[in-house]
Amino acid sequence: MTKSPYQQLELEFRRLHAFRGAASILHWDAAVMMPKGSTELRGDQLAALEIESHTLLASPRVSRLLERAEANTAALDEWQLANLHEMRRSRDHAIATPQSLVARLTKATARAEVRWVEAKQQNNFAMFAPHLEEVIALVRDKATLLGKALNLAPYDALVDEFSPGLTTREIDKIFATLTQKLPELIQQSIDTQSKNPPLELTGKVTALKQRQLALELMKGLGFAFERGRLDESEHPFTGGIPGDVRITSNFIPGNPLSGLMGVIHETGHAMYDFGLPDKWRDQPVGRDRGMVMHESQSLLLEMIIGRSRPLLRYLQPLLEKHFGVNGPEWQVENLYRLLNRVRRSLIRIDADELTYPMHIVLRYELERKILAGELRVADLSAVWNDAIERRLGVRPASDTEGCLQDIHWSGGAFGYFPSYALGAIIAGQLYEKLRNDLSELDDDIAAGRFSGLFQWLRDNVHSLGAKISTPDLIKNATGKVLSAGPWLRYVEGKYLAE
Amino acid sequence: MTKSPYQQLELEFRRLHAFRGAASILHWDAAVMMPKGSTELRGDQLAALEIESHTLLASPRVSRLLERAEANTAALDEWQLANLHEMRRSRDHAIATPQSLVARLTKATARAEVRWVEAKQQNNFAMFAPHLEEVIALVRDKATLLGKALNLAPYDALVDEFSPGLTTREIDKIFATLTQKLPELIQQSIDTQSKNPPLELTGKVTALKQRQLALELMKGLGFAFERGRLDESEHPFTGGIPGDVRITSNFIPGNPLSGLMGVIHETGHAMYDFGLPDKWRDQPVGRDRGMVMHESQSLLLEMIIGRSRPLLRYLQPLLEKHFGVNGPEWQVENLYRLLNRVRRSLIRIDADELTYPMHIVLRYELERKILAGELRVADLSAVWNDAIERRLGVRPASDTEGCLQDIHWSGGAFGYFPSYALGAIIAGQLYEKLRNDLSELDDDIAAGRFSGLFQWLRDNVHSLGAKISTPDLIKNATGKVLSAGPWLRYVEGKYLAE
Repeated sequence: MTKSPYQQLELEFRRLHAFRGAASILHWDAAVMMPKGSTELRGDQLAALEIESHTLLASPRVSRLLERAEANTAALDEWQLANLHEMRRSRDHAIATPQSLVARLTKATARAEVRWVEAKQQNNFAMFAPHLEEVIALVRDKATLLGKALNLAPYDALVDEFSPGLTTREIDKIFATLTQKLPELIQQSIDTQSKNPPLELTGKVTALKQRQLALELMKGLGFAFERGRLDESEHPFTGGIPGDVRITSNFIPGNPLSGLMGVIHETGHAMYDFGLPDKWRDQPVGRDRGMVMHESQSLLLEMIIGRSRPLLRYLQPLLEKHFGVNGPEWQVENLYRLLNRVRRSLIRIDADELTYPMHIVLRYELERKILAGELRVADLSAVWNDAIERRLGVRPASDTEGCLQDIHWSGGAFGYFPSYALGAIIAGQLYEKLRNDLSELDDDIAAGRFSGLFQWLRDNVHSLGAKISTPDLIKNATGKVLSAGPWLRYVEGKYLAE
Repeated sequence: MTKSPYQQLELEFRRLHAFRGAASILHWDAAVMMPKGSTELRGDQLAALEIESHTLLASPRVSRLLERAEANTAALDEWQLANLHEMRRSRDHAIATPQSLVARLTKATARAEVRWVEAKQQNNFAMFAPHLEEVIALVRDKATLLGKALNLAPYDALVDEFSPGLTTREIDKIFATLTQKLPELIQQSIDTQSKNPPLELTGKVTALKQRQLALELMKGLGFAFERGRLDESEHPFTGGIPGDVRITSNFIPGNPLSGLMGVIHETGHAMYDFGLPDKWRDQPVGRDRGMVMHESQSLLLEMIIGRSRPLLRYLQPLLEKHFGVNGPEWQVENLYRLLNRVRRSLIRIDADELTYPMHIVLRYELERKILAGELRVADLSAVWNDAIERRLGVRPASDTEGCLQDIHWSGGAFGYFPSYALGAIIAGQLYEKLRNDLSELDDDIAAGRFSGLFQWLRDNVHSLGAKISTPDLIKNATGKVLSAGPWLRYVEGKYLAE
């Protein structure tokens, strides 16, 4: 029997999935395993795979098959229809950017990422700047082309890649609310917390011990080690593919809670990947619903659950077992205060959840200006330092603590940062519903029973893949449209109660 | 200016090189890093890359370009001519095997390799047998098709992939000589050595300490860590690509010399890859001259140099430093006796250099019979055990020590084993010339000066890539045609002197 146009498309996208999976593992390898001298070679490999993926998506054959499949959808069920919709979306994104630009961007970011690691280690922004310039010039071209194809402003076109269905209009509105409410809340929290400061942790914990605790914690949370790994890298990330999930952390002996919270964060990402619909794993509809949804899962697990008293009650015996610690500073209440301390700090990934959105607003504003040509890379360091001082009252002593702290721009990920703050907002909304539906949630978490939590997330988020839009997904899961309300209620309850 | 057909071919083969490099890293990852549950997904990725490589090589475009380039070679220098010759050879090998068979073989071996690890761990040949059957059926089809295309017998066609320019005629002759000379030499050596047996090593050395010593030794030998890595895997191998060389070892606490010699062996492979002509690294002529030549480099470094008194004089202080050992059993003369002890043993990779060829002859005979349909997989275990008992007077107590010990067949590598023994013969011939050319070789090695040794190998072997044929390479390097004479002189001098 001849295959229908839709069935032929499924075969094409299965091949695409294999190329992308290969590239994803090679990206992971470049960050975690690869010797530095192999950067150029790896760039060639990734460029070849990227070109192949692009050629496939942009081929006349795929265009013809899409048109034929869309002309006769009577035989398709709702998953297949959604899959067809996502195929179209992938293809429209792909053809907007010519192959030569894709290849140049892949090579430029491979180089820039390596230079970024060196520049950050050596606190030498000048070493990184020309590579960032090169990446930005290419991203700007891409944004212009994408914007034309999708009928969006250039920056909105970039955002659409990471947060499908959201634009600067929604982002500006939500960020305006946060910028309006948070400064006072931050000040109040700092004042309240200053009356009862936590004991500081002292001493060092080896990376090996941190890793062993992390592995036990991940196992407890339900991380599927037969389909995933934990490793270390400069910047923690979740890589690989849904059936081979690779999370990394960065274990710092003098700051053991940092790597641990990083592991919880990435495990939140990983659980989303593990929960995607296995039946559709090699098709577009089987992928996650974009970065913003992904970030909601990591922030829910790290910020809301990972730093809660119930989770710390579960964690405390593990700390004693692996780190050999049981002094007063390692007790639940003190850890809770340490992990939820609100501070005007410099480093985004170490920021508390109240000041965190301020870090994002800063990056959002700067990257929009850079792409619009209103801010030069040469001025980035100074402008960054002024901006963070204005927003949070602190000024970096070095670029390593300033504009060199994040890997994202070196990888060409502009339009990506907003998804972190939007992810927190979504996490807050999901959490409100979760608590409502699971009355024993706190007791379960304290006892190390996480199956109810993840079953709820699987049912309401993970297992849907990319079947419905982000707004619909949130509406269906929580019964309400997306708003900052639930998250603001959550943080007010948490920080003003103290 | 338009590109010539030859120049266009270079571009096509550069793309091929990127696909193959990606696949090579993914193979390494599968053996060293990948969680077991991801086997099927990795099979999909490797199959997609293999199909892409095959499609490229077998394309009408490449055929047309080859014909046009071959019709007008006036403008090509000798490297370009050799490159064109290797392009043609790659293409002729590729089109003999249809794409569907390539894909099925890739998937079947990915599955079989994982089952082999489990079966070996559990000493359960029955668990592995159906997967081996599947691989063999596909290899047999491939051999038949390759043989027709290359006008060779099926098994010779497989050998040609690993040892280009050698067939069963030469192999039978060399193996007949070895089989004739070695039994008496083995018996004499065992008798001689029994008069002065070495002290056994006792106690255990952690894998971590072994790894640290291995890293220092590799550094001393000149391993380029900015373009390579050391890791651990069930079966030691050298993977990656020339600019990103990944060697593995298997560090066994109760047998620290085994992992160490494995590291020296793989470093021999790695140094060949590092020394290949960088200018031609993405072209066929820039590749190594086949497995037999590769094995000559690893065996020269491990068996001839690695187990020599000069190398052990260099190694001894490192053993003291990393393992904290300095008893009489760890002194140079005792280590020399331990490492060159001739024994009738079961495991190929632990075998001494005198009995080693017997292990190869065994595998060579069995794999020819299996492929010819004269031996059933179901009977393999029993026939293996009988054969090793007949050849060496020892019988495996389990398949883990018998027909499950090697990974090769699970990966579809039939026709590969002979290259190990032929590699030793070539190593012996190179070594004779090396000693003649470098009068200070022993003193240099004892003092940790390896640059003269590797410079000679780079000049005479590594830097030639695949420019000339294996027989020509050996003739040019040593002034003599390939024969077993130099190797037999070397082992007689070594083992009968004692």
